[in-house]
Amino acid sequence: MYEEQLNDPGAVQVEQRTAPPYESAIERASLVEEMIYEGMRDGVWSYYMSLHPSDRAAVLTELPAGIRRSLAQEMQPETLAGLLDYMEPRISARVLRQFSADALADVLDLTDPATSTEILGRLPGGKRLDTIAAMEASRPVEALLRYEEDSIGRLADVRTPVLSEDTTVPIALDRLRLMGTAAEEMRSLLVVNNYGFLVGSLNPVRLALARPSATVGQIMDRDITSVTTSMDEQVAVQIMSQLRVSELPVVEEDGRLVGLVRAEDAVEVVEDIATEDMYRMAGIGEERITGPLAESVRSRFPWLALNLVTVFLAAAVIGLFESTIARVVALAAFLPVVAGQGGIGGTQTVTLVVRSLATGGLPRGLGLRILRREMILGLIHGLVLGAIIGGIGWVWEGNAILGGVLALAMTGNMVVASVAGAGVPLLLRRLRMDPAVSAAVFVTTFTDVIGFALFLGLATIFIEFLL
Amino acid sequence: MYEEQLNDPGAVQVEQRTAPPYESAIERASLVEEMIYEGMRDGVWSYYMSLHPSDRAAVLTELPAGIRRSLAQEMQPETLAGLLDYMEPRISARVLRQFSADALADVLDLTDPATSTEILGRLPGGKRLDTIAAMEASRPVEALLRYEEDSIGRLADVRTPVLSEDTTVPIALDRLRLMGTAAEEMRSLLVVNNYGFLVGSLNPVRLALARPSATVGQIMDRDITSVTTSMDEQVAVQIMSQLRVSELPVVEEDGRLVGLVRAEDAVEVVEDIATEDMYRMAGIGEERITGPLAESVRSRFPWLALNLVTVFLAAAVIGLFESTIARVVALAAFLPVVAGQGGIGGTQTVTLVVRSLATGGLPRGLGLRILRREMILGLIHGLVLGAIIGGIGWVWEGNAILGGVLALAMTGNMVVASVAGAGVPLLLRRLRMDPAVSAAVFVTTFTDVIGFALFLGLATIFIEFLL
Repeated sequence: MYEEQLNDPGAVQVEQRTAPPYESAIERASLVEEMIYEGMRDGVWSYYMSLHPSDRAAVLTELPAGIRRSLAQEMQPETLAGLLDYMEPRISARVLRQFSADALADVLDLTDPATSTEILGRLPGGKRLDTIAAMEASRPVEALLRYEEDSIGRLADVRTPVLSEDTTVPIALDRLRLMGTAAEEMRSLLVVNNYGFLVGSLNPVRLALARPSATVGQIMDRDITSVTTSMDEQVAVQIMSQLRVSELPVVEEDGRLVGLVRAEDAVEVVEDIATEDMYRMAGIGEERITGPLAESVRSRFPWLALNLVTVFLAAAVIGLFESTIARVVALAAFLPVVAGQGGIGGTQTVTLVVRSLATGGLPRGLGLRILRREMILGLIHGLVLGAIIGGIGWVWEGNAILGGVLALAMTGNMVVASVAGAGVPLLLRRLRMDPAVSAAVFVTTFTDVIGFALFLGLATIFIEFLL
Repeated sequence: MYEEQLNDPGAVQVEQRTAPPYESAIERASLVEEMIYEGMRDGVWSYYMSLHPSDRAAVLTELPAGIRRSLAQEMQPETLAGLLDYMEPRISARVLRQFSADALADVLDLTDPATSTEILGRLPGGKRLDTIAAMEASRPVEALLRYEEDSIGRLADVRTPVLSEDTTVPIALDRLRLMGTAAEEMRSLLVVNNYGFLVGSLNPVRLALARPSATVGQIMDRDITSVTTSMDEQVAVQIMSQLRVSELPVVEEDGRLVGLVRAEDAVEVVEDIATEDMYRMAGIGEERITGPLAESVRSRFPWLALNLVTVFLAAAVIGLFESTIARVVALAAFLPVVAGQGGIGGTQTVTLVVRSLATGGLPRGLGLRILRREMILGLIHGLVLGAIIGGIGWVWEGNAILGGVLALAMTGNMVVASVAGAGVPLLLRRLRMDPAVSAAVFVTTFTDVIGFALFLGLATIFIEFLL
């Protein structure tokens, strides 16, 4: 009976996804590339247009820059506009940079203002102004561009329909009908008073079932949480996730309604922020693993170069103690032990602190408490690891004093690792900088330099017992 | 005029959030703790119950374990059930572990099945079975527990209302009215055929505005994307984010409808997955930065201990070349240079690969291509850094051969760092293990051990020119 059902054409229109759709974006892009090289322009178009817009966007992202640009230039404005919602603004801006201001304006007029704003924000200043001037629907974009980057104001959907509180039910229903299918996407209709201030929200189903004599103000919900435009997008998303709501109205500081942020946009924000933090911690800029090599070099080399300062600082510290090492060469073997354990300890702390700051798990004003907590943890780990490592060192070299020096240096370096791991991101935040920036480089500087200095310094003091 | 408006009590019921609500969960918890120590039981309750459920959950999370348990035990089942939706399942399970199976069943009967399932999955086996046996609403929970952990089936809301395709509009509307306020939360009503197979979705607003003679099947959308229960939750969330939809129906492999996943739940999944990946990469288990110390030690110490193997391996390599170092002590100073640069390079690659695997940016079947790409990048970075570091080494020690040895070792180690950084997570995935697990420890093992071996090995070969 089930099989009959599955053969019914009405039933199998349901698209069932069992494999991720992006698995094949790269293969699809290769196919498009091949077809273009073989001159099959028509074949390319009929194949490309048969894809879902989100897949078209994924394929466009994976194509080499040259083909990507020529493909985009041949598209109708509405086709291209339909893809921009699904593409990374960084890639969209790169594709659209070659367009004339007029052509670009035609595309962006058909695009969601929040997406247009993100793209415009990545264009050079002159091009941006020319494009906005050429746009017909420039007002919402100009309004959004007033808000700071990474503020929730930038993400607001300003085209969300709004009802006035003294509208009657039949008139509100008529407005809903006029919107056509767009009305169906509304989860709640925002209600404002005569001054444009947000005063409540109304569920469209409640509206549809209400008695005709009521006004919107009488049946709306007055209990509504909103956020202000200047709020950091990450904080706003935290609130949305904590309250488990799917939409959050955005208002100006004075309470005037601006628009609505939706949970499905928040998913992307959360993902992007996490990626950015991870990359910054590891010393990576903006790149895609399947992107061009030059992009990857630009993204990673600056941090590798910065790390040169770190490693030569560490080298200089070892250089200071060359005469000690000359007398007890065995010390050299233990250098990576002290530094390496400190490095992992520091990485643990810095990762925990950076991530807790990002997800709201670490409120302001607790900096000193966290610093003390991590210091105690570093001491505990340092004492245990020091005992183990000191013991191994003792047995290995048959010298108890060497074991003691190792144990002391290890304990000290674990405390330093914890303090640096917690202190560096907390300090960066206090300086209003990104706590994640290059955490790996900064923290290993501390653990290497201080680890070597502690170990070799102690060894120099006790050198007579190590010979 | 604005001020008048702001003083109007009708307008100011709108709660406007300008600061994150969680900023004060720790302070609130301290307040509760103090009141309890001073014996103000009534004060505690009236204060605690005045908070929003999401804030109550946050305060409960921050309280010391003892107070947390006694507070939970004194709550009415419905009050406690109202908090569980907002709490981390790990914390909820810890709070509820002390409850008898009957008491626990009372609470979970009032909780969302997806949340109950997550909590039950973290209880010891016997307790879990006893609790399910004592629950009245055990069927949806039992159904969800059949799906694997981290599969999207576990996250499905199975209580979502479903319409049959041959229901008429007036009857469907009646069903909607019977649901009361719950109906207002529906963004789409799922439609099934007589066999329980998902065949479409219907927007409630379209239903409310439809002519009475139509059936649900006639006005529904047949174009609907669903995912199967066994799909990894992360992949499902990727699809939701890529298609920009706020809900995704979940079906069995054969097409029978199970329930619905919502974007607001996905936000949490995305955030949790990113946190887990970051922590695993850095060698951290499950902990909160404001949690108890013992939890942090349990979370971090295993990785520190594992790293001992790494650092002593590196030490053994240096030990092999002790006679070389004894002859040219200056070599010791350059050890952290080669290893440190390799470590950062490896961290960059491993972070990029792990994150790309997690966000779907790296499809299967591309492993070798990525490995080759990273190897080329490692070679480019290695040649440039090798030239710089070799040059510095030459000037520093006044020995061109030393510079050459450094340059060669640096180039080689950067290639090794890239290959290990890309190869380790790709191999872990092929072995069906988590690619993020302890990436930092594994990759630094490679860069330390091979970096030291390359540098000291080359120095041993050219030792005559270094004296």
